[in-house]
Amino acid sequence: MPVNLQPPLVANLHPIAGVRIGVTQAGIRKADRKDLTVVLIDEGASVGGVFTQNRFCAAPVQVCREHLQANAGIRAMVVNTGNANAGTGEDGLRRARETCDALAKALQLQPSQVLPFSTGVIMEPLPHDRIIAGLSAAIAAAGASATSQQWADAAQGIMTTDTVPKAASTQVQVAGKTISVTGISKGAGMIRPNMATMLGYVATDACVAPELMHTLAHALAEGSFNRVTVDGDTSTNDSFVVIATNKAQHAPITSLESAEGQALFQAMLQVARTLAQAIVRDGEGATKFITLHVEGGRNTTECRQVAYAIAHSPLVKTAFFASDPNLGRILAAVGYAGIADLDQTKIDLYLDDVHVAVKGGRHPNYQEADGQRVMKQSEITVRVVLGRGDATDTVWTCDLSHDYVSINADYRS
Amino acid sequence: MPVNLQPPLVANLHPIAGVRIGVTQAGIRKADRKDLTVVLIDEGASVGGVFTQNRFCAAPVQVCREHLQANAGIRAMVVNTGNANAGTGEDGLRRARETCDALAKALQLQPSQVLPFSTGVIMEPLPHDRIIAGLSAAIAAAGASATSQQWADAAQGIMTTDTVPKAASTQVQVAGKTISVTGISKGAGMIRPNMATMLGYVATDACVAPELMHTLAHALAEGSFNRVTVDGDTSTNDSFVVIATNKAQHAPITSLESAEGQALFQAMLQVARTLAQAIVRDGEGATKFITLHVEGGRNTTECRQVAYAIAHSPLVKTAFFASDPNLGRILAAVGYAGIADLDQTKIDLYLDDVHVAVKGGRHPNYQEADGQRVMKQSEITVRVVLGRGDATDTVWTCDLSHDYVSINADYRS
Repeated sequence: MPVNLQPPLVANLHPIAGVRIGVTQAGIRKADRKDLTVVLIDEGASVGGVFTQNRFCAAPVQVCREHLQANAGIRAMVVNTGNANAGTGEDGLRRARETCDALAKALQLQPSQVLPFSTGVIMEPLPHDRIIAGLSAAIAAAGASATSQQWADAAQGIMTTDTVPKAASTQVQVAGKTISVTGISKGAGMIRPNMATMLGYVATDACVAPELMHTLAHALAEGSFNRVTVDGDTSTNDSFVVIATNKAQHAPITSLESAEGQALFQAMLQVARTLAQAIVRDGEGATKFITLHVEGGRNTTECRQVAYAIAHSPLVKTAFFASDPNLGRILAAVGYAGIADLDQTKIDLYLDDVHVAVKGGRHPNYQEADGQRVMKQSEITVRVVLGRGDATDTVWTCDLSHDYVSINADYRS
Repeated sequence: MPVNLQPPLVANLHPIAGVRIGVTQAGIRKADRKDLTVVLIDEGASVGGVFTQNRFCAAPVQVCREHLQANAGIRAMVVNTGNANAGTGEDGLRRARETCDALAKALQLQPSQVLPFSTGVIMEPLPHDRIIAGLSAAIAAAGASATSQQWADAAQGIMTTDTVPKAASTQVQVAGKTISVTGISKGAGMIRPNMATMLGYVATDACVAPELMHTLAHALAEGSFNRVTVDGDTSTNDSFVVIATNKAQHAPITSLESAEGQALFQAMLQVARTLAQAIVRDGEGATKFITLHVEGGRNTTECRQVAYAIAHSPLVKTAFFASDPNLGRILAAVGYAGIADLDQTKIDLYLDDVHVAVKGGRHPNYQEADGQRVMKQSEITVRVVLGRGDATDTVWTCDLSHDYVSINADYRS
């Protein structure tokens, strides 16, 4: 039951010159399911990525890091669902590499020009033979030119427990050219990205210096995927890749501080944030979309720490599910967020426009009926004022419902 | 549906000379409910306590800290359920103090000789007039002598969402005397004690030097209440109090390192650990009792960090609920536990006697049927070997079920 999230309209997804996408059924875990996606990138593109900070990172994440460092010019990506190829040791690494080798051979590339991605069940051997067998059909599906439909197909092709495909697109003027930005993402559970989300891809035809790509990917992740959580579980496979195909024929952007850099960054951030929020809206069992805004902190880090403590509290999340203004649970989470010298007598709490707590206690004018009114909404903003400084930060999350338990108790069966 | 947890047998609860307990109905939140408990302590007892690290600590916790520091000799405790008197600001402090004043007056004590405790809903004004009105009935119920039944009544009187009263008792030889140790606790949700649990009390008739009591309380909490979690939510009201009535007529214990100190400590630890584990067994919605044993760490802290990452993962907890050996979720939690230089190729995972993963990958002999067999048990031990050193630590937790969501979505209604 996603929260105010519709499947993307195909016509709204701007094709990105220089990126072609093909999706096929490879029978990786279940039959009759689009589970294999290849992304083909024209020569000359700039590509950057950020990956999970989970120390149990999956084999494909390790290979992605190696191949990006090899700096041979990324020309293709291969994404499978149904199996995460994580917790698979040396054998998993071999299977990820053989998948890259096969795609490289089919496209006459070096293996280090291919990035592999896997998502699905952890600690089961990747059926890479089926992936390799499916590559030619996926390449054929990519066809000769970039289309909107390919992006819609890819958004569908990378889904696992997602109920809605996730894609976003925009256009912006950069250096006198109309630039397109289009992205897709997947994810619904095991979502507490640290550096990036489960799988996210944003492409543009803008011209960006290759050496800026890592910075760009990192800055976009920080403003989007690194600000959402469903269940606090940081995935082994989080990957976020940014592609600039350099087709737009303007002078390459070399800094995010320039006017062109800022224009492009804001457009890409809008797409990345929509994709990240879509993951929360489609969070496993989600019935509410919650914005947690913490202000008055000494620094951004402590604001984010407080926001995540609230976002991860099962008691807060179940209260949202119940539309119960049991708001003391939010104060309790603020209190255990880990700020050693927090002074509870300086803390204010707002639920949308309702002033709930002042100086650490219930606001004298607060009426439970007002809290109840806001709690019944499908979109709620919680605002915590720490009274310690000027820093702010925002995190997006969802509630914890019976369906979360059902989905995760049944996921493999 | 508590996990292998029975109500205590009254006859097994050894009375503690010097401690009398009275319970009554004060109508604090609901009618016809035993919601007010007084504990009367003879002059000459040694008392120590540890309290929540939540920065939003409740008014009674603040007053407890003050009164213990005043060092006037604790002679009484008053415990109410139905209202936590937390998130209540200055007004909450005033109500906690007035409650102590009233009990002190009735017993001809100084207010600083009284410790107050509250548990229940957060951010609602404490109806302290009803508590004060109920004190004389509670004092009368305490009667003239210590009995087993009083401890059983108290275990019942401090319950909130608990389904089973929690008490434990033992006897031990100390300095040639038979010493009794009896304790009670409450708690089922908002359980991730940090210094102590929601409410826990352990009393003994042993003789302990007053200056040792804080050390004793801290050491007991570290080995019991600070090793359990239900939902990761550290309460605003966690309080753990240790009472030595000094009635046993042996030379006072002045060190936990002495033979007498060790004998008493182990007996008290056994009681405290039983009480702490009872909270997990009665964890909201719990269907399984999980022991998480992490070994091969560089230090205890990192072992505990890994154990808590697993214990708090909603994905791991729902897999336990489903009896689904989806054990990659445990590896993922190990990976995001925050050990920056963790080497996944050194990690082994066991489920009871089943060797699931070796060197970060699935064990070649692991059969899902074996994992399934263990996952169906009501008591499961997860053992993680980090391969980094010799430190170990253990944490106890429960699963995450539909009932947890139901209980916390409905708690106030």
